[in-house]
Amino acid sequence: MVATHMDLHTDTTEPEDPVFALHRGGKMEIAATVPLRDAADLAMSYTPGVARVCEAIAADPEAVHDYTWVSNTVAVVTDGTAVLGLGDIGPSAAMPVMEGKAVLFKQFGGVDAIPVALATTDVDEIVETIVRLAPTFGGINLEDISSPRCFEIERQLIDRLDIPVFHDDQHGTAVVTLAALINAARLTDRFIEDLKVVISGAGAAGVAIMKILQSAGVHKIAVVDRTGVIHPGRDDLNEVKGWVAEQTRHWARPGSISDALDDADVFIGVSGGTVPEEAVAKMAPDSIIFAMANPHPEVHPDVANRYARIVATGRSDFPNQINNVLVFPGIFRGALDVRATRISEGMKIAAAHAIADLVGDDLAEAYVIPSPFDPRVATAVARAVTDTARREGLARRPY
Amino acid sequence: MVATHMDLHTDTTEPEDPVFALHRGGKMEIAATVPLRDAADLAMSYTPGVARVCEAIAADPEAVHDYTWVSNTVAVVTDGTAVLGLGDIGPSAAMPVMEGKAVLFKQFGGVDAIPVALATTDVDEIVETIVRLAPTFGGINLEDISSPRCFEIERQLIDRLDIPVFHDDQHGTAVVTLAALINAARLTDRFIEDLKVVISGAGAAGVAIMKILQSAGVHKIAVVDRTGVIHPGRDDLNEVKGWVAEQTRHWARPGSISDALDDADVFIGVSGGTVPEEAVAKMAPDSIIFAMANPHPEVHPDVANRYARIVATGRSDFPNQINNVLVFPGIFRGALDVRATRISEGMKIAAAHAIADLVGDDLAEAYVIPSPFDPRVATAVARAVTDTARREGLARRPY
Repeated sequence: MVATHMDLHTDTTEPEDPVFALHRGGKMEIAATVPLRDAADLAMSYTPGVARVCEAIAADPEAVHDYTWVSNTVAVVTDGTAVLGLGDIGPSAAMPVMEGKAVLFKQFGGVDAIPVALATTDVDEIVETIVRLAPTFGGINLEDISSPRCFEIERQLIDRLDIPVFHDDQHGTAVVTLAALINAARLTDRFIEDLKVVISGAGAAGVAIMKILQSAGVHKIAVVDRTGVIHPGRDDLNEVKGWVAEQTRHWARPGSISDALDDADVFIGVSGGTVPEEAVAKMAPDSIIFAMANPHPEVHPDVANRYARIVATGRSDFPNQINNVLVFPGIFRGALDVRATRISEGMKIAAAHAIADLVGDDLAEAYVIPSPFDPRVATAVARAVTDTARREGLARRPY
Repeated sequence: MVATHMDLHTDTTEPEDPVFALHRGGKMEIAATVPLRDAADLAMSYTPGVARVCEAIAADPEAVHDYTWVSNTVAVVTDGTAVLGLGDIGPSAAMPVMEGKAVLFKQFGGVDAIPVALATTDVDEIVETIVRLAPTFGGINLEDISSPRCFEIERQLIDRLDIPVFHDDQHGTAVVTLAALINAARLTDRFIEDLKVVISGAGAAGVAIMKILQSAGVHKIAVVDRTGVIHPGRDDLNEVKGWVAEQTRHWARPGSISDALDDADVFIGVSGGTVPEEAVAKMAPDSIIFAMANPHPEVHPDVANRYARIVATGRSDFPNQINNVLVFPGIFRGALDVRATRISEGMKIAAAHAIADLVGDDLAEAYVIPSPFDPRVATAVARAVTDTARREGLARRPY
């Protein structure tokens, strides 16, 4: 009955780019799930009827999960400091990514996600703000917050909130990487525990991948940053990289990425740099290359395929797209369904196995990971999370 | 493709109350406005395509209004301290009201409103939190925040933000009350400037009604709280009531509500108390009674009709429902459409006139205010706001 937002965009300077045309007015909206046709409807959804629901929640705070959308919502929170490969572009410029994430949450997980772009980059202010917002949401998905600040923000929030907090750039990427690696090892008839792994990139994704691989039993890991292999002898390491050095010291040896790749079984790239072909050439037989930088993989698949048996990227135009849309919708679907207090390491590893298992008998060099549009994925991940939550005593609601 | 939130609610203890059944799972959801069927869609709405939109906004921050949903969104923010007539029930228990408000925003104004319930009641913390959230929203609707804290929070936010901030309990109520009073004066052939008005209640609504009536030319106003008429001789007044005393001192005389109503033309109740029938009986001929407390009007319409010519309440089951759903959707629709920097007094008064004028030739004792479901209202209010914004130089976008 009212002129809508979309009608009002008559700016004639719009670029021809269809991506801009698609984004005009944004990618999402609110929809009512209750009727509002007449005064009787209004008296149910709003005053005076709503007062009874408010009183019920005031008497039993747990009832908020039954009678509001809170228990199905996730805030997708950014400060705009590490957006895609674009870097620190600020909260407003990050909004299109947050909206994109939100529509993926709904499409794949049935989760109502709300973009939240913050006008502060101060760790304590971000934490305080999210803690104050917490009654509004059933979970917090941190997104595109720069490293190493993201680790501290996540740590404090997990400590202070009793709802799931998940930094997707860390854990979504780690889970889907582990899933692909499980299948790559399976296909090449090896145990992942025996693989020699080089991770290029010690930001949010690289550190989280190191952690999940160690949790899954991989113990021969070297993490490489721009300066070379991270090891305790370096004097240029921040707190997080110092910790990485300690975690990997029994296998990682000082040197360049080229030194590290010599006889390595697995390369995992989450850095955005480029690996020289001669370094790739030194990897062990049946090697595995996951070059996930977007849009430019650290090793182009045409090059990687000359040396490696299994090649994956972050891109949809090559086989084996390692995409964390396989992870976050199902992770939160499961966590919300049982009202999990947090996302545990066990849940993440179970999710990785669930994703890997969906490939089944179709496992092949060009199919170690399901398609982002495989309709079974989110349900399988959610089930893995709910089962693990129950087993670990982290589920507050029977499923 | 995934089990949805609603499917999971199989709790067998649900009350039979249909209001609770309606509220199960909440009253709203997120919906995508873009297709997400395949990898090509994903490459447009998410990576890699979305990066171009982010870069465009980073280069020109104004573009966020064209390419995200920000410019159509309003945060409905509460701290849960003054919810309906229930008082300080906390942020979680306030959520059903915030959701109700949000669905009304969408239904009547096409505005995408997002409930935000804060886990703090500290004025400075609330202000800081909302300021940090500001890049996320096109406007801020404050809701159910107790008086006098609400005045300070609103003042600071208006000062610090360049997007519209509107405390609906104050200004929505004030605008719709003025609209009804304009028509009541018209019907009884008087100028509102001449009316002697008693306002019962000196909280958010009472103070805002006093202010808008003064802006509209009413100068004979007494504001009454539980202790009696507010006047400068009282030593129990907080800062806001002290200000009210100054604003009304040239007409208001010390005394009880019964004293104040003696020969008064208009009673406006936003207090929740009860006015004795003998006090009502002392009002002037052709008197006007707006007894808006819910669910129990300060003067029951059966009593009011014995003495007054025009009687209105906040209830849908009596004639003349004074309901601020007539106001806030159109106010924000208009403000967002022209990207107004704030909601001015001029916009509010123009909105009141627009609402009043819709009654037209149908004006009658039982019809001084349109129905909340009159489809013309939001459009008329939005138009009044956009016209005023342009005239006052507050519009950042041509309409």
